[in-house]
Amino acid sequence: MNKTETPVTIIGLGLMGQALAGAFLKAGHPTTVWNRTASKADQLVAEGARLAPTVGDAVKAGSLTIVCVTDYQAVHELLGASEVELDGTTLINLTSGDSAQARETARWAEQRGARYLDGAIMAIPPAIGTAEAVILHSGPQADFEAHESTLDALGTVTYLGADHGLASLYDVAGLAMMWSVLNAWLQGTALLRTAGVDAATYAPFAQRIAVGVAEWLPGYAQQIDSGSFPAEVSALETDARAMAHLIEESEAVGVNAELPKLIKAMADRSIAAGHGGEQYPVLIEEFSKPRSA
Amino acid sequence: MNKTETPVTIIGLGLMGQALAGAFLKAGHPTTVWNRTASKADQLVAEGARLAPTVGDAVKAGSLTIVCVTDYQAVHELLGASEVELDGTTLINLTSGDSAQARETARWAEQRGARYLDGAIMAIPPAIGTAEAVILHSGPQADFEAHESTLDALGTVTYLGADHGLASLYDVAGLAMMWSVLNAWLQGTALLRTAGVDAATYAPFAQRIAVGVAEWLPGYAQQIDSGSFPAEVSALETDARAMAHLIEESEAVGVNAELPKLIKAMADRSIAAGHGGEQYPVLIEEFSKPRSA
Ligand SMILES: NC(=O)c1ccc[n+]([C@@H]2O[C@H](COP(=O)([O-])OP(=O)(O)OC[C@H]3O[C@@H](n4cnc5c(N)ncnc54)[C@H](OP(=O)(O)O)[C@@H]3O)[C@@H](O)[C@H]2O)c1
Ligand SMILES: NC(=O)c1ccc[n+]([C@@H]2O[C@H](COP(=O)([O-])OP(=O)(O)OC[C@H]3O[C@@H](n4cnc5c(N)ncnc54)[C@H](OP(=O)(O)O)[C@@H]3O)[C@@H](O)[C@H]2O)c1
Repeated sequence: MNKTETPVTIIGLGLMGQALAGAFLKAGHPTTVWNRTASKADQLVAEGARLAPTVGDAVKAGSLTIVCVTDYQAVHELLGASEVELDGTTLINLTSGDSAQARETARWAEQRGARYLDGAIMAIPPAIGTAEAVILHSGPQADFEAHESTLDALGTVTYLGADHGLASLYDVAGLAMMWSVLNAWLQGTALLRTAGVDAATYAPFAQRIAVGVAEWLPGYAQQIDSGSFPAEVSALETDARAMAHLIEESEAVGVNAELPKLIKAMADRSIAAGHGGEQYPVLIEEFSKPRSA
Repeated sequence: MNKTETPVTIIGLGLMGQALAGAFLKAGHPTTVWNRTASKADQLVAEGARLAPTVGDAVKAGSLTIVCVTDYQAVHELLGASEVELDGTTLINLTSGDSAQARETARWAEQRGARYLDGAIMAIPPAIGTAEAVILHSGPQADFEAHESTLDALGTVTYLGADHGLASLYDVAGLAMMWSVLNAWLQGTALLRTAGVDAATYAPFAQRIAVGVAEWLPGYAQQIDSGSFPAEVSALETDARAMAHLIEESEAVGVNAELPKLIKAMADRSIAAGHGGEQYPVLIEEFSKPRSA
């Protein structure tokens, strides 16, 4: 163990907490751990971690505490106990939650004298410690920068901005992209399989389209930020006609047509609102409206 | 005009037909055109095209005829006229339609002595003649190969297979991917804008996720083709919990939650069918079932 590395404390040794603690140990950080069910620390202790007897003791072990438990309620139960002194600590909460919980927990921790960063882990436990693991952080930039070199042990560590809610928002936005690419690929795979095309044959085509369309996003974003949507490439009305083909084809060959129908319903609403001659990103107006039908 | 280039005939001079004819002229092909409204040929004639007096005459002008009109009904009206001789011609139909129409039209054209390829244009008219314009073809491979070097004038010309329905199927599958990437990006943009993040700031993040997930598709395709979905990366149940976060966050910040809800509904159905411990591509079973709710 390298004495020059910063000490870190990990509270919560579920699948993810164990992976986080393991990555810090591997990178040579003196690592203190705590878990409600103490036996989950056994392997880490064998690898050199110190098991703290109480949460309060774990927090006191160093100046950087990472908490990763099931939900924010568990965070509050654990760190709200009277024996726990947060004053002077930097607390990084990698527990999944929403932006409102992140902002509330930031105020709560700061009132108790802690510096607070909220985070979100876009990775599975086995990826922790590799560049593939993207870990998002939001909160005061100086607090992130003070610990960035330590956090680097976990993977690709990213800072998003001062608003503590950003990590949660980027996390769910990224997941929406993930499931959408997968679902569109499954829709296409289902369509092609009706013609005897196997999934492996279709996949590279789907991949090329996804990558090509993703390249448009920065340009399309300018339309949203300027609030002006000239039909430079094609008008929403033209898209809607092709969407009807997608629905008809899905129904004709007997595959699920719910995703095609949702795609068209969003466009139809925007056309009904008078945007048929504008370009696709004008749909931001529909996506920004509360609606859960 | 280079005399060694193959003569081509274009029937239909809407926005797309004009672009196709223009690209052939530019590449030096002797180009014959016909359109119901003859005046749409004026510019092309000025550029060197020959305007045929009748559809029958246009088809007779060479051995390769491309038709691009509104729909398959128009194709049948035009080419079914008694004066039109299809015998010995290769007919490439770039009109948008569905896979069943493509297969029927192939049988119809072949009965009349034509070689037939069905196509789909994944591009807007101004892109025709550039590598950006992807043009899909399906039908007998030898017929495609006989004309591939001529078709190259139109853009990135791709052959998909012998089944005439493939071009339409790949076309709508690719469009489903296009709209899905755009919609997921809009969902994320709507979420992030509630925290004051502009679209341009979020777009590169969305792009990276889309590209990263697209890279998984060939590997995930192997699970579908083998019909076995071990949870190597994560189980569908774990995804479903994160999907609930996406819905809650969308509702909490007041943006549209229909796309998040459809994502979760598909996963929930698969979990209810007993697949909660398997990996995401097991959803192919849901996508392959007729359902339009
Ligand atoms: N696993 C993943 O793939 C993944 C990916 C990204 C994000 N995350 C997020 O990371 C967090 C942890 O996930 P995980 O996979 O490690 O979950 P897990 O394996 O279920 O572990 C949950 C942890 O939370 C502790 N805990 C729960 N309620 C508690 C309470 N009231 N008091 C004290 N401790 C409590 C558990 O302690 P016991 O051991 O005593 O039960 C355990 O350490 C979650 O927010 C999850 O969404 C996970
Ligand atoms: N434009 C695009 O961005 C785009 C992209 C991909 C695919 N496509 C597909 O390409 C095809 C043509 O599109 P387009 O943009 O060129 O459409 P368009 O500008 O509306 O032109 C339609 C063409 O079809 C002809 N036509 C329609 N009904 C006819 C009939 N009964 N008899 C004879 N001619 C008839 C029209 O003749 P008149 O001039 O006499 O009306 C015109 O030449 C469509 O299937 C479209 O889906 C278009």
